[in-house]
Amino acid sequence: MKNNKSYFRKNIDEMDGYTPGEQPRDMKYVKLNTNENPYPPSPAVMKALKSLDAGRLRLYPDPLACELRKTIADIFGLKSESIIVGNGSDDILTITTRAFAGEKDSIACFEPSYSLYPVLAELQGCRCIKIPLGYDGDFYIPSDSAKKANGAKLFYIARPNAPTGTLFPIGEIRKICRNFKGIVFVDEAYADFADDNCVGLLEEFPNLIVGRTMSKSYSLAGLRLGFALASGKIIEGMMKVKDSYNVGMPVQVLATAALKDRKYFNETREKICRTRRYLVKSLLEKGFEVCGSQSNFVFAAPPDKDGEGVYRRLKKNGVLVRYFKGPVTGRYVRITVGTDKEIRILLRNI
Amino acid sequence: MKNNKSYFRKNIDEMDGYTPGEQPRDMKYVKLNTNENPYPPSPAVMKALKSLDAGRLRLYPDPLACELRKTIADIFGLKSESIIVGNGSDDILTITTRAFAGEKDSIACFEPSYSLYPVLAELQGCRCIKIPLGYDGDFYIPSDSAKKANGAKLFYIARPNAPTGTLFPIGEIRKICRNFKGIVFVDEAYADFADDNCVGLLEEFPNLIVGRTMSKSYSLAGLRLGFALASGKIIEGMMKVKDSYNVGMPVQVLATAALKDRKYFNETREKICRTRRYLVKSLLEKGFEVCGSQSNFVFAAPPDKDGEGVYRRLKKNGVLVRYFKGPVTGRYVRITVGTDKEIRILLRNI
Repeated sequence: MKNNKSYFRKNIDEMDGYTPGEQPRDMKYVKLNTNENPYPPSPAVMKALKSLDAGRLRLYPDPLACELRKTIADIFGLKSESIIVGNGSDDILTITTRAFAGEKDSIACFEPSYSLYPVLAELQGCRCIKIPLGYDGDFYIPSDSAKKANGAKLFYIARPNAPTGTLFPIGEIRKICRNFKGIVFVDEAYADFADDNCVGLLEEFPNLIVGRTMSKSYSLAGLRLGFALASGKIIEGMMKVKDSYNVGMPVQVLATAALKDRKYFNETREKICRTRRYLVKSLLEKGFEVCGSQSNFVFAAPPDKDGEGVYRRLKKNGVLVRYFKGPVTGRYVRITVGTDKEIRILLRNI
Repeated sequence: MKNNKSYFRKNIDEMDGYTPGEQPRDMKYVKLNTNENPYPPSPAVMKALKSLDAGRLRLYPDPLACELRKTIADIFGLKSESIIVGNGSDDILTITTRAFAGEKDSIACFEPSYSLYPVLAELQGCRCIKIPLGYDGDFYIPSDSAKKANGAKLFYIARPNAPTGTLFPIGEIRKICRNFKGIVFVDEAYADFADDNCVGLLEEFPNLIVGRTMSKSYSLAGLRLGFALASGKIIEGMMKVKDSYNVGMPVQVLATAALKDRKYFNETREKICRTRRYLVKSLLEKGFEVCGSQSNFVFAAPPDKDGEGVYRRLKKNGVLVRYFKGPVTGRYVRITVGTDKEIRILLRNI
């Protein structure tokens, strides 16, 4: 047995792995770098947590997560058969990739967009077709996107887009669903902070999957719950790919509690949208260029277009934001919408 | 868009998916079918649950699960770099499959063994080499197993084996590690109920991974926590394949609490082993053939070799056990070791 022998697949050996945002273990930073919600989860989650029966942990969770899926279905006016839940939306994205794209296939995505999509392709050993977004001071979908993506089995589109915050016109998504021959996965991780979403398109397009997460708008990043909405046929196939017990019992119970508290959800969402407007206005006043954000973060470029400089200056002063290298993205920083107080600290130090 | 078009990969369309044991939603059954622990988790888990700060759920969990991995490492006398944690051992098995076996590759496993292994191969789109165990009233590893498996990238071995309970001699595992050219994954889901385990072989063999779960011996099936032990180099590669935040914050906290309570763990394990001895003795007295179990379940064949008949009779009388079709396995039922009281009910109705 030679020591330098690798047992790994070639694609795994050659890849770097995904780099998540910094998660500093001490809390000295004002943390505006990973799009977490600045408010705690619903009090209903606290209550459900306190009344959880630890004795029940000895039993496997419901593999079909019936109550949780029914709760989600009710919110969206769909049937449970149209819902799959996962261990965070990472799990949903992994299930989707494995269900639709094999080693000889390709996956399409825009650039810049969520940097996990190309990593998912690498992990699966398939090719990634990166379609550059148009840029005219803001980012837009080029008109020939479906054509460029064709040949791919799967098209990942984040809407609102990350890290830019852009809400691509819904007509553009419709056009892609119509003209692209594979599965269109619209990743709506941030859609709860936006004016509209693509759930209404599900009836129209059998090749559409809409992905959601409870990490942002429900303040449950630590819990891990993501889900997808699609036709019953698509969900049925995806269920074969998921791990049998991919969502633990406490997660099912706490997520259900959070989803049922519509009042708290709406209030929190509105507070964040209000702070976002304040942040955008203040940045514009300071001469920043700001992308039209419809999410819980803002993508903003300082007058000198030195995104990295802003990132470093803020970090030195105890404020974490995120910076993305690149000829265009490098001009910007991505700032999570925190509390008003956190945003005031950011603005003082930017 | 034709309605009958499938967007799925061929291997996904053609597979049935894994069938987990029945999880009846009402509790009228004496449930001895999915190898759950009959005792609740450690009181330390209850305590940790009650003092969990729900507010912290808004933040992403530690992607490296440092404290949990350190706790596991300490128990096994290893370094944290030798540990990866997952969302149940299903997640660990999925990560392993994706890391080492591509579409042109094959995976080896014994038969009968854990029925998930061939499903993992199907999901990955690779071939499965099934090596029949020898049978002489009990199940044993044929001497040419490594040779039969060679060509495969990965060899899944459950030890103790499921559903038979057999603890293959450690010398056989050593021989396979030495002679098989790919990764040997020894799935020790039930090893806490056995006389020995393969953790000591890790130093010797760079191609060995040992898998564990907290679902059985720690009574945490509902929580979802599995882990694997291997060389730092193997773990480093597997970390690239896992979802970034694959273990939620509550899971990290509660699993750590359970692992630290060694006293409760040892007491529970001993109670189960004691009940297992009582169950085996009673079944032998009733004329059953019983495989030499070193796990928290017993594989037993009635005098008339009609496993299915026993399964049906028990189910009618409110006791769930598991039955596996097949010319040899079909003679048996698999009975989870419950409490003494549950086993008395089983014995009255068998």
